[in-house]
Amino acid sequence: MRVLATLDGIVVDPRAPLFRADDLGVLRGDGIFETVLVVQRQPREMGPHLDRLERSARLMQMTLPERASWERAAQAVIDAWPWDEHPEMGLKLVCTRGIDEGDGTPSGFAMGQEVGPETRRKRAEGVEVVTLDRGYSTDLMERAPWLLLSAKTLSYAVNMAALREAEARGADEVVFTSTEGTVLEGPTSSVVLAEGRKLLTTPPASGVLRGTTQGALFRAAEAAGWQTEVVNFPTSALFEADGVWLASSIRRITRVRAVDGTAVKVDGALDEEIVGLYESNY
Amino acid sequence: MRVLATLDGIVVDPRAPLFRADDLGVLRGDGIFETVLVVQRQPREMGPHLDRLERSARLMQMTLPERASWERAAQAVIDAWPWDEHPEMGLKLVCTRGIDEGDGTPSGFAMGQEVGPETRRKRAEGVEVVTLDRGYSTDLMERAPWLLLSAKTLSYAVNMAALREAEARGADEVVFTSTEGTVLEGPTSSVVLAEGRKLLTTPPASGVLRGTTQGALFRAAEAAGWQTEVVNFPTSALFEADGVWLASSIRRITRVRAVDGTAVKVDGALDEEIVGLYESNY
Repeated sequence: MRVLATLDGIVVDPRAPLFRADDLGVLRGDGIFETVLVVQRQPREMGPHLDRLERSARLMQMTLPERASWERAAQAVIDAWPWDEHPEMGLKLVCTRGIDEGDGTPSGFAMGQEVGPETRRKRAEGVEVVTLDRGYSTDLMERAPWLLLSAKTLSYAVNMAALREAEARGADEVVFTSTEGTVLEGPTSSVVLAEGRKLLTTPPASGVLRGTTQGALFRAAEAAGWQTEVVNFPTSALFEADGVWLASSIRRITRVRAVDGTAVKVDGALDEEIVGLYESNY
Repeated sequence: MRVLATLDGIVVDPRAPLFRADDLGVLRGDGIFETVLVVQRQPREMGPHLDRLERSARLMQMTLPERASWERAAQAVIDAWPWDEHPEMGLKLVCTRGIDEGDGTPSGFAMGQEVGPETRRKRAEGVEVVTLDRGYSTDLMERAPWLLLSAKTLSYAVNMAALREAEARGADEVVFTSTEGTVLEGPTSSVVLAEGRKLLTTPPASGVLRGTTQGALFRAAEAAGWQTEVVNFPTSALFEADGVWLASSIRRITRVRAVDGTAVKVDGALDEEIVGLYESNY
């Protein structure tokens, strides 16, 4: 199930080609994106997603179509989506730098996709993860902005390769680690730990994306009296924590059952509380 | 000027859309490519380019359409190109993983583009380069194959960002360096040094692409009695060498005039000899 809309808010056939061969998105992965969860017509964290899209555009020195056009395209997809049949939708917002040596007009669209059974299984059962070396130091982002470490670009081949590696090792997901041995993020998620009544996640300054879902969870947790800390922590902390979760728009808050084949603490009541905090936002 | 052909060898309108919005090439930069120089109907290093395309596909665990279909598409573009008007062409071969959650059929095309005035200027005048930290160690490739360091993927956003950084610093090109301070490669080129009658370049095992143009140069140089060495060397070697060049398909062998604002040795006769060695292949 796909519903596609252009930035002028027109719904078009998702099976028809939309991009020229010489679009820089096709030739160079030269563009940015966001994926937003929409539940029964209600987008979650649309503001933070559009903020991050704008931030990615700045880091990429790209012209971004105005916010209203993204909202218009998103609404067109939401209006055309068959909500009775599919109560949830993953909404992709994609923007490329446009035609190679063209007039500089970016290419963009909004596209709704159904939330598949694999995602629902991960939500329900939790995930096993493997840690994979990302090859970067946590101080790299600041000294090498050209590496685009905190931009959500379309150049996701490495993220996809890491997920294939996890699958080859019999796991569901990946947690990337820095050269210092600290936890970075998943290929499409943030990592969250609980230690007592405190939630922890890795700082964006270490070269990870600012998590929209993690942000929503922390907002609700703080309102409920939890402490939160944004700090680098070693891989060993995954085994010492009271619970580990991956936070991402479509999978929401998914508990981690095992890391590199070793079980980590899973407390059903705590998991329910954490998921409940996130859901209390909506 | 663009000439576009599909993999069944049919020339199509390059201004018409070819890719669906949900192609993984668009959504994830999830694909591979090659750029081949074609001079007066003669492709240069087509065999090594297709070998590297196959190698990239293996590293990406992608299904690649058979070699004959690439040759057919390339020939269709060559046959349709206006050679009288444009004696040179850059030929892109692009293959993506196909539609997201589709039937696994890859999407591909061959596209000819003219060699622009900027490229001709760089060939004629040489280039000024800046060194930029790539954030990787030279031993990373072996221990982290999921980082795809030696695959030529469509995820080139970082390469393009590095070139923008060079431009912002008043330079033409980039030489990436490792965390050990050794020379890696350019975003779209290999680095070659001359020391006496010896040519040097960085080993692919350090996480750089195997250069097709560098390979052609070394082949001719060896036949002419030069020594060649594939070895890691520090940035300081750029200043001590008798000459430094960037080797890439479209720019061919381009001499480096300055590194980080400091002039490096340029010997007109030596440059002519090196360029002549490369050209002697054709």
